[in-house]
Amino acid sequence: MMKYSKPILAITMGDPAGIGPEIAAKAFADFAIYDRCRPLLIGNVELMMKALSVSKTDLKINSISNVAQALFQPGTMDVYDICPKGGVSDILPGVVSPKAGELAFLCVKMAIDLALIKEVDGTVTGPIHKESINAAGYSFSGHTEIYAYYTKTKKYGMLLADENLKVVHVSTHVSLREACDLVKKDRILEVILLMNDALQQLGYKQPHIGVAGLNPHSSDCGLFGYEEIEEITPAIEEAREMGVDVDGPVPPDTLFALANGGKYDGCVAMYHDQGHIPFKVLGFTWDKEKNKMKSVKGVNITLGLPIIRTSVDHGTAFEIVGKGIASSEALVLAIDYAITLYNNKLKNKG
Amino acid sequence: MMKYSKPILAITMGDPAGIGPEIAAKAFADFAIYDRCRPLLIGNVELMMKALSVSKTDLKINSISNVAQALFQPGTMDVYDICPKGGVSDILPGVVSPKAGELAFLCVKMAIDLALIKEVDGTVTGPIHKESINAAGYSFSGHTEIYAYYTKTKKYGMLLADENLKVVHVSTHVSLREACDLVKKDRILEVILLMNDALQQLGYKQPHIGVAGLNPHSSDCGLFGYEEIEEITPAIEEAREMGVDVDGPVPPDTLFALANGGKYDGCVAMYHDQGHIPFKVLGFTWDKEKNKMKSVKGVNITLGLPIIRTSVDHGTAFEIVGKGIASSEALVLAIDYAITLYNNKLKNKG
Repeated sequence: MMKYSKPILAITMGDPAGIGPEIAAKAFADFAIYDRCRPLLIGNVELMMKALSVSKTDLKINSISNVAQALFQPGTMDVYDICPKGGVSDILPGVVSPKAGELAFLCVKMAIDLALIKEVDGTVTGPIHKESINAAGYSFSGHTEIYAYYTKTKKYGMLLADENLKVVHVSTHVSLREACDLVKKDRILEVILLMNDALQQLGYKQPHIGVAGLNPHSSDCGLFGYEEIEEITPAIEEAREMGVDVDGPVPPDTLFALANGGKYDGCVAMYHDQGHIPFKVLGFTWDKEKNKMKSVKGVNITLGLPIIRTSVDHGTAFEIVGKGIASSEALVLAIDYAITLYNNKLKNKG
Repeated sequence: MMKYSKPILAITMGDPAGIGPEIAAKAFADFAIYDRCRPLLIGNVELMMKALSVSKTDLKINSISNVAQALFQPGTMDVYDICPKGGVSDILPGVVSPKAGELAFLCVKMAIDLALIKEVDGTVTGPIHKESINAAGYSFSGHTEIYAYYTKTKKYGMLLADENLKVVHVSTHVSLREACDLVKKDRILEVILLMNDALQQLGYKQPHIGVAGLNPHSSDCGLFGYEEIEEITPAIEEAREMGVDVDGPVPPDTLFALANGGKYDGCVAMYHDQGHIPFKVLGFTWDKEKNKMKSVKGVNITLGLPIIRTSVDHGTAFEIVGKGIASSEALVLAIDYAITLYNNKLKNKG
């Protein structure tokens, strides 16, 4: 039934002190993923043994140091073994440490390298912990920045995606004041075009995009704020001239309700929380009785890279590590998005 | 069964060119509201006759010019008749005009005056249109500002409320840059205290409040932005010393998912869209097939006033005026909130 060969995906373990190893174990135990791709894990064999036990899965591990050694057989988890200097014995569940950060970072770096030399067709990342990464001496605010740096990408964007809502951001991890300064025509146009490409790669033939304003009510025609008139509208007009089907500026408190109901295939958010708030309030729900989030199904995709990168959008969830209750739903969804991006990329190439 | 006398509520017609008159007709035709309150409409008799016909209701109108003339009988709508100079014949459905703005404004002003002299126990407002209000020569950005001005209230806040989510705002109709400047300790403390009082009036004995940060991830300990450390945390600490049960700063993209799941009874948002985006994305849904919003159940309450004011949170919906399809659900909910506020105010007085 597959029109194209199944992509080889490098899936990183994430922070070894978090739920990354457990959810990876559960995802690999879902044999149906092998119908759609050839997955291999980039992680540490010793720690993955523990995670398999916590997750109560029967998988065997095939330790590899080269993609050619991978078997891609359901029931066997191919683990591209990464070991930090001094071993992993002092990495403790749920605890920030330079060693955990070092291992998490090395896995991501290996995934990027393998994708750049085309030994794998795409990468899917598990959750890392920024404090550990920084404690290990790597000054990055997240995966997005690591990927941009090592692939030498200047024009990139963070896309959050679930079934109904797809949101890309003009800026991410900067103060809200700096985010206002970054609302500039050229960057907005760049992000609209990134979104248009991404939606086409996700299978939308003629994507319909909604662009948010920056100010409340999109400034009510300049009554409070000028960015809609001076920056956002000119970017939208230029994108339209380039053939993109784009509306806006749409009042920020209306855009996401419209998109969630199907009016827009994708949204452009002017700053981190403008996009993250609607995405998380729809995708994550606090379970008061169990005292935990009960749904965590969002996927984070980096746009503009020369390689495919998708990721879970949740964190390391230190508070539930080792309990075997973490859900692999978001990771499987991230794998599916990577497969879709790969297949449509092939299709678009003809 | 009623422990207290039923409050007299002044319900304004809203902009006569919008759906306000129609939804008022439907709300008054829901006779159950008379079990809980004594409602009267402040509007124009001639236009309300048309709205009754559009809404296919059998109500009779009792035109009054004094609250003492009201009958408060199911089946009869008491209309406190307001007529702008020159009559209402040139007010057209779905069209912005100074005359429509003049009439809408006069109704609101009458509701405020009747509440201030205690002829009514509370006020509930229908949707007005800012352009018409401004065209009529009144420079207000909305009901909240009109109420604050005519009741001489300096410390007030806009609360959005539905079943699961209650959000009050540190600022509303200002640019996002100005909103950043308004994130000041004294104002945040004021808003936390307004929220605590409001939640108690809504029946929460010991309200649990979550306060949002301003920056993404609440600035990750000052990494991007300083307002959490210099303004928000000190306000929270002072509120705690005053006995308020308050958490924060909670990362903005997490707070509303937590509150929606029951972790917080109320939220404090740092700016208009931070609170309006989650509220509307949960409460309003775009119906792609019918090309309209299919749920509009939010209520807007002005906190800090000497009188009770609740309102629908939706707009005038010019595009569906005269079709008889507008829902009175939000207006009935706003009436119920006004009744609850009145009853608990009485109860708290002993």
